[in-house]
Amino acid sequence: MKCDVLIIGGGVLGFSSAYHMKRRKPDDKIVLIDRLGGPGQGNTAKSEGAFRNVFTSKTNYLLADSTIDAFTHFQQDLGYDLKLDHIGYLWLFSDEQHRRLRPVLDSMAGLGVELRFFDEELSRMIPGLVTEFTGEEAEILGLEPVDVAMQGVKCGSIDADSLVRCYERMFLEAEGEVVYGAEAKRLILEPEEELGIPGEPFVWQNVAVKGAETSKGEIRAGTTVVATGVWSERLLDPIGIDAMMRPKKRHIFVFKDPRLRSLFEVKGLNELGVLPLTVLPKSGVYLKAEVSEGSIWVGCADNLGRRFGLEDDPQPEEGYYTEGIYHVLVEYLPFFKDVRPVNMWAGQYAINGFDGIPVVAPTPGMIYVGAASGSGIMKSDALGRIAAALYVGEEEAELYGGRRFRVADLGVRSRRVEREEFII
Amino acid sequence: MKCDVLIIGGGVLGFSSAYHMKRRKPDDKIVLIDRLGGPGQGNTAKSEGAFRNVFTSKTNYLLADSTIDAFTHFQQDLGYDLKLDHIGYLWLFSDEQHRRLRPVLDSMAGLGVELRFFDEELSRMIPGLVTEFTGEEAEILGLEPVDVAMQGVKCGSIDADSLVRCYERMFLEAEGEVVYGAEAKRLILEPEEELGIPGEPFVWQNVAVKGAETSKGEIRAGTTVVATGVWSERLLDPIGIDAMMRPKKRHIFVFKDPRLRSLFEVKGLNELGVLPLTVLPKSGVYLKAEVSEGSIWVGCADNLGRRFGLEDDPQPEEGYYTEGIYHVLVEYLPFFKDVRPVNMWAGQYAINGFDGIPVVAPTPGMIYVGAASGSGIMKSDALGRIAAALYVGEEEAELYGGRRFRVADLGVRSRRVEREEFII
Repeated sequence: MKCDVLIIGGGVLGFSSAYHMKRRKPDDKIVLIDRLGGPGQGNTAKSEGAFRNVFTSKTNYLLADSTIDAFTHFQQDLGYDLKLDHIGYLWLFSDEQHRRLRPVLDSMAGLGVELRFFDEELSRMIPGLVTEFTGEEAEILGLEPVDVAMQGVKCGSIDADSLVRCYERMFLEAEGEVVYGAEAKRLILEPEEELGIPGEPFVWQNVAVKGAETSKGEIRAGTTVVATGVWSERLLDPIGIDAMMRPKKRHIFVFKDPRLRSLFEVKGLNELGVLPLTVLPKSGVYLKAEVSEGSIWVGCADNLGRRFGLEDDPQPEEGYYTEGIYHVLVEYLPFFKDVRPVNMWAGQYAINGFDGIPVVAPTPGMIYVGAASGSGIMKSDALGRIAAALYVGEEEAELYGGRRFRVADLGVRSRRVEREEFII
Repeated sequence: MKCDVLIIGGGVLGFSSAYHMKRRKPDDKIVLIDRLGGPGQGNTAKSEGAFRNVFTSKTNYLLADSTIDAFTHFQQDLGYDLKLDHIGYLWLFSDEQHRRLRPVLDSMAGLGVELRFFDEELSRMIPGLVTEFTGEEAEILGLEPVDVAMQGVKCGSIDADSLVRCYERMFLEAEGEVVYGAEAKRLILEPEEELGIPGEPFVWQNVAVKGAETSKGEIRAGTTVVATGVWSERLLDPIGIDAMMRPKKRHIFVFKDPRLRSLFEVKGLNELGVLPLTVLPKSGVYLKAEVSEGSIWVGCADNLGRRFGLEDDPQPEEGYYTEGIYHVLVEYLPFFKDVRPVNMWAGQYAINGFDGIPVVAPTPGMIYVGAASGSGIMKSDALGRIAAALYVGEEEAELYGGRRFRVADLGVRSRRVEREEFII
């Protein structure tokens, strides 16, 4: 098969890139393949399904803020039900943490991030929240009191599956082609000008990616887009391109229990009266109310000690909740006592350890979109537009809403981004 | 075993770190281990053995320039024979390449890099050098003419084995301890304050590296230095720290043949009258005269197409010379015709794909020194001093000769370096 663009990876970054490329070049033959049987069945499906524009890096802010506007457009104007719930994000800090973060928070306000702060009223707003700790257990756990809460207003919850299906539908309606069950086995790297001599490419030849060998045969393409998330290293390592990320496992534990009902009786934080995506001041434990199914999702940002390494099917570890997260969670929200998760799963983040910001980088014949560091879905529309701008040869991409973005800033050679200080 | 500092890795970065830590803290028990039987038997032994202060990044310039001064001090003042030969580096450019590189070259001159330029006199200086090409073969190969040569003056050749033995000796004389044949199997990551509960460390505990399990038993240390080059990912991935590099194979081919004698009859480029380390204008092919053994060493900077991936014992591929490098080399220096290598080997570079600059980064209980991107030996003294400054808690390291360097600049969290544009 031959095409103008081959997109490898049917997650949200692959489909957003595919859609925006097709939008820019409606007559080009653009084909997306995925090894699985439908859209977003890799780590997109494992996502926490949350979005925020609360970042310290101006780059991240622009990528996310414009993508959130695009989501709203898809749901309100185009009629796609993305299950957008504007529940907000809520970070709980001790006074000391707040003081330490002050410069970072000020810089975010300077970017235009809408933030609200709360202090004493908080325990009335979230019924049952414990804010002060005494005693040996609290000391052993190293609990931080809750003195201040910061709410990110333009933040909330989205159904990742609905989002990727929305991009798939728009891509198909524009006559893009999708092939499921086609696994890219290796990228085809060949001389730009082939001589037909055995042993090519030689070191003196200029080489380019010219497509991929897949489980359904060879697909040749003028441009190949690698958007395979944590799996990118399997395609890129063999041709000597750094995927600029390492995979790390993250969990979601789901709870559905009448004892947790007060998390759906929250006051003054959003119109739905539910718990925002709330980050506790200890150990990176976070939780959100999942409105559509009436459940609570709990996760944790484990860093040092959680191994890097690609897993095709990462398994959740229940002990990670019962022996770890639980002991912190139950101190802040005691009604979690003895409540067991009804469901759990694990996915992998593609963590860019250098600056925590995604990469959209060209190589001859190829565009790599990845290293999204766990916040790719909420930046997906902007990243797809930037990949499309690279494809059509523009120096600046137009993000949803009209803001402009220098394409080379997300590349490697002329990378110009600010290190993100606010990674969950 | 217990010690203040455990250094894992007896290459040049490990020994330089060990020596400078011991110099700063003479009473501390500092132990270096290596899995092999002597110093520098990993990729240090595979090195091209060259040094240069010609970098575009001010950081790289400072690291290398001060390290070269330290080498000179070791040989001239302390009596270590490092086989330092100040043969220089020589880059050959076409007019077009020169024009394109102009801003980069100007910025290097601005840093204080001593550069000399040559044009027409070059073919008299290097007897037999072909500078103009016509015909089909040259066109197929895409050869660039040699119009301009740029010499880096404070550059040359060093014996990497003698250097690592010099550091080993100085470390041992300061009563540092070395254990060979001890392989670090895994880093010990434990809670900073242990409770003695099964399952530790839990997510709510602060953790730190506390030494390593080795093939000769457990070694506990206040600070563990990981200086294992491309092997660093084997220790760091399991505890979730990004080694900030990927391993890539590089070759050296050695030639000893009377037909190459004119490379030892070079005029006007160095006092030894030999070929500097010379980079051809095509495909990153380079070669140098190895004065001590009267041989020519040839290598090539292959990038796109050369896979990333750790190899314990990378094997040289003769075809990489005969089918690749040879065709370029013999056009510029026709007396290479039919000369076969008498020796060859391959090692691996630890390539930092982001900015090409080494990393010296702390984690609780640990210091990582690596990602040197193929130029670690020529920066070894500075990197060891920076690791030692981290150990003693200084914000600035004093490099050899007195220049100062902000330690956090080479870390990850507050990294502040300029992307290197001049990687060979």
